[in-house]
Amino acid sequence: MAQRAYIESVAQQQGEQVTIKGWLHNKTDKGKLHFLLVRDGTGTIQAVVFEDDVSPETFQAAQKVTQESSVIISGTVRAEQRAPGGFELTLGELEIVQLAEPYPITPKEHGVGFLMDHRHLWLRSPRQHAILRVRAEVIKACRDYFDDNGFVLVDTPILTPAACEGTSTLFETDYFGESAYLAQSGQLYSEASIASLGKVYCFGPTFRAEKSKTRRHLLEFWMVEPEMAYADLEDCMCLAEEFVSYIVRTVLENRKAQLKLLERDTALLERVEPPFPRITYDEAVDTLRSKGLDFQWGDDFGAPDETALAEAFEKPLLVHRYPSQVKAFYMEPDPERADLSLSVDCLAPEGYGEIIGGGQRIADYDLLLQRIDQYNLPGEAFQWYVDLRRYGSTPHSGFGLGIERTVAWICGLEHIRETIPFPRMLHRLYP
Amino acid sequence: MAQRAYIESVAQQQGEQVTIKGWLHNKTDKGKLHFLLVRDGTGTIQAVVFEDDVSPETFQAAQKVTQESSVIISGTVRAEQRAPGGFELTLGELEIVQLAEPYPITPKEHGVGFLMDHRHLWLRSPRQHAILRVRAEVIKACRDYFDDNGFVLVDTPILTPAACEGTSTLFETDYFGESAYLAQSGQLYSEASIASLGKVYCFGPTFRAEKSKTRRHLLEFWMVEPEMAYADLEDCMCLAEEFVSYIVRTVLENRKAQLKLLERDTALLERVEPPFPRITYDEAVDTLRSKGLDFQWGDDFGAPDETALAEAFEKPLLVHRYPSQVKAFYMEPDPERADLSLSVDCLAPEGYGEIIGGGQRIADYDLLLQRIDQYNLPGEAFQWYVDLRRYGSTPHSGFGLGIERTVAWICGLEHIRETIPFPRMLHRLYP
Repeated sequence: MAQRAYIESVAQQQGEQVTIKGWLHNKTDKGKLHFLLVRDGTGTIQAVVFEDDVSPETFQAAQKVTQESSVIISGTVRAEQRAPGGFELTLGELEIVQLAEPYPITPKEHGVGFLMDHRHLWLRSPRQHAILRVRAEVIKACRDYFDDNGFVLVDTPILTPAACEGTSTLFETDYFGESAYLAQSGQLYSEASIASLGKVYCFGPTFRAEKSKTRRHLLEFWMVEPEMAYADLEDCMCLAEEFVSYIVRTVLENRKAQLKLLERDTALLERVEPPFPRITYDEAVDTLRSKGLDFQWGDDFGAPDETALAEAFEKPLLVHRYPSQVKAFYMEPDPERADLSLSVDCLAPEGYGEIIGGGQRIADYDLLLQRIDQYNLPGEAFQWYVDLRRYGSTPHSGFGLGIERTVAWICGLEHIRETIPFPRMLHRLYP
Repeated sequence: MAQRAYIESVAQQQGEQVTIKGWLHNKTDKGKLHFLLVRDGTGTIQAVVFEDDVSPETFQAAQKVTQESSVIISGTVRAEQRAPGGFELTLGELEIVQLAEPYPITPKEHGVGFLMDHRHLWLRSPRQHAILRVRAEVIKACRDYFDDNGFVLVDTPILTPAACEGTSTLFETDYFGESAYLAQSGQLYSEASIASLGKVYCFGPTFRAEKSKTRRHLLEFWMVEPEMAYADLEDCMCLAEEFVSYIVRTVLENRKAQLKLLERDTALLERVEPPFPRITYDEAVDTLRSKGLDFQWGDDFGAPDETALAEAFEKPLLVHRYPSQVKAFYMEPDPERADLSLSVDCLAPEGYGEIIGGGQRIADYDLLLQRIDQYNLPGEAFQWYVDLRRYGSTPHSGFGLGIERTVAWICGLEHIRETIPFPRMLHRLYP
C-alpha cells in the first residue's frame, strides 16, 4: 500500500498515491459509483469508488461497508473544488478493518439523554469533534500564556484535609482512617508556592458536589488558577483581561474551521481585547435596579443578574469589590470600605456568566486568623495556611478561570455538558 | 522606586537602578557592611548594604531583617565575578514588607518528618525550588511533544463508575447515592476518544489507595497517557523511546542550573536517545536467573528485579511481552504465543524502575467480553467500553508515563516524595 497520509495535509500530496486509516462517516451509492466520506481524526475526505477502476472485491467492500466501520483506503489525491476541503480521493483499494454493527447515532435527531448515554460514540460527530479541538486549543493557550509570562506550573493536591470554600459541597473519601475531600480549588496551595516561585499557576480538575442541574454547572470541571506574590487587585484585573484576550485570540487564529462548523459568530470574539470595562459591585447593583430587577445589596449575583449586567457590554465585564459576606474567608478587605472585599469576577458576554473569580488575598496574620474563626473553619487544618502570613507574607492575588464555561462561551454552546469529553452531572456518572 | 526587575534577567540591566521584590534567604553582618541574599522566585542575588551609603533607617532595617522576611530592595546592578550568577546589587533602599518570625527551617539538618510537616515552607529551599522547576519543565515537554506530533488532549474523568485495574486499591466516594471511584488511569476513556480524534493524550492526577510505603509510591500522582488508533506494540515502543528522549533532552537544555544545583551527573542523561535496548520478558527472566535471583516465570517484577535488569544498560530499557496473567484484562494477546501479552514496560536506568507501562489493547469484541468475564469485572459498567469494539474497532495502543518517577530519575532523587509540591502518602494528607 501507499504511504500513510493524514487528511489535514493531503493538500500537499496532490496527484500522489496515499493510504488513509480512519472510519466511514457516511456514504452515497450511485450504481457504478460509491462516494465514501472517510474521517481520520484530522479531517474528512470523500473517496470516489468507480466500479470499472477497482477490483470486484474492492467494489463489493464499498457496497457492504457500514457507517462507522474502520477502514483503510488507498488512492490518488485529486483537487476537486466542490469537495469540502478542496480535495478528494480516487479510490484504488479499500480494506474494512472491522465492519461496524448498525450504528446507534444516525443522521436523525436524537434526544440529549440518549446522546449522553452514548457519549463514548457521540464524541465522533463533527460537532463534538470540533468542540474537543477548541477545548484542547483553549487549554494549550492557557498553559502557553503562563509559561511564556514567568509563571511556574505547580500541581496542587486533589486529596485535601480541609475545604477551601465551605464544606457542604464536598466529595469525601476515606483516606486510611482519615477523612479526605476532593479539592474545589488549588489556590491555598498556590499561595504557599508563590513564596518559592514568585508567580505560579495550577491547572487541574476540581469538584463541587452541588445538587444543582443548570446549563452552567458540572460536578467535575477543570480550572486554571494563577497566583502572584507582590500583586494587588489592580494587577489581578490586568492579568485577567490580558489572559482572556490571549485565549480568545489564539482560538480565533488556530481553530477557524471548528468555529465555522459550530456556526459561531466570531465578530463578537474579535472585539475581545484589553481593556475590559470595569464596574464596582455597587454600580452593578444600581444597573440591575435601573433595569427593574429586584436585587438586594449584599446578595451574590445569580445567572439572570450576570446576564443582565453583561448585556450592556460587547466585551467581558470585570465586576470588582463585592461585599465580603458573599466571598470566601481569605479575601482582603477594601482599605477604603471595610464591608467590601478586593475581589473581582469576570463575566463573559452573551449571557455566559462568570468565567473568572479572584482577587487579593489577606496578607495579615491576625486578620486571617480572625476570619477563619468567624467562618467556623477548622483552625487545625488551616495551620499551614496561616503560617504563610508569619514567614514573609506579601500582598498577593490571583484568580481561577473555569475551562468549561470559557469553552462554552467561545464555541457559543447552550449547555456546558458538551465542553468536556465525559461530563459529570447530577445522576450522570456513566459512561 | 526604580523599575521592578527579576533576578533571572539582571544581567541585561548592568549599571541600572532596579527594584526587586522577594524574600531574605540569608544574611551576613560585617559591622558597617551587610550582605543580604535575596531570592524572588526567578533567582538569588546578593545585595550589599554599606552603612555610609544608605540612610540610617535603611541600615537599621538591614540589621533587623530576619530569614524569610518579605523585602523590597532597590539599588544598582554591578558585575561581580565572585557572586553566584555574576551580579550583585549595591543597595540603596530596603523595605521590610513583613518581618518574619523565627523561621523553623534553619541551615541545620532537619528530619524528613519535620520537613514534610512544613512542606508549605520547605518548598522555598533551593533544592526544592530546583526540583519544582524541573517538574514544570518535564510536564511542559510532555505536552509540547504530543501537541507538536498530532495528538489532541482529552481530559478524561476522575470520578468513574468502575475500576480500570482491579478494585482493591480504589478511593471511593458517594456520588448522590451511587458509588464513584477516583480514576487510576484515563486509558479506557482515551480509547473511546481515538475513534474521534485518531491520536490523543490525557494528562491528570491518578489515584491508588495502596497501603505501601516505599520510595517509589505516592497515593496521588500525575500520569500522561497517549493512545493511538491504528497502532501496534511496535508503534507503541517507538513512541515511548522518542517521547522519553525528548523529555530528557528538553530538561538538559533548559534546566542546566537546576540539575547542577541538584548535583545530578548528567553524563548518563546525555545518552538517552533512541533506540532503547529491548528485551522480552522471557529474556528478562533468564537475565535475573543468571544473576542468581530466584525468579518464578509468570510473576511480575519487583523493584529489586527492575533494578537488576536495568543495571546492564546505560539507557532506559524496554521489556516487552509479559505474561497475560500479570497485566490488565484489556491487553492484546501475542498472536504467536497465547500466554503472552503485547505489553511493554520502560525501566529507567540507575535503579529508578518502571516509568512507563503500556502496550496494544484488545481490538476484538468477543475476546474482550470473555476477558471482562474472566477478570470478574462488572459487565454493566464496561458496556460502553465494549461498544468501542462493535463500531469501528482498530488495532490500537498506548501507554502511561508516571511524572513523579520520571522527575525523580531525571533529578537523581532518592525518594519520590520531593517530586510533587504536596505529596500524598500513607498517613500523609497534611499540609
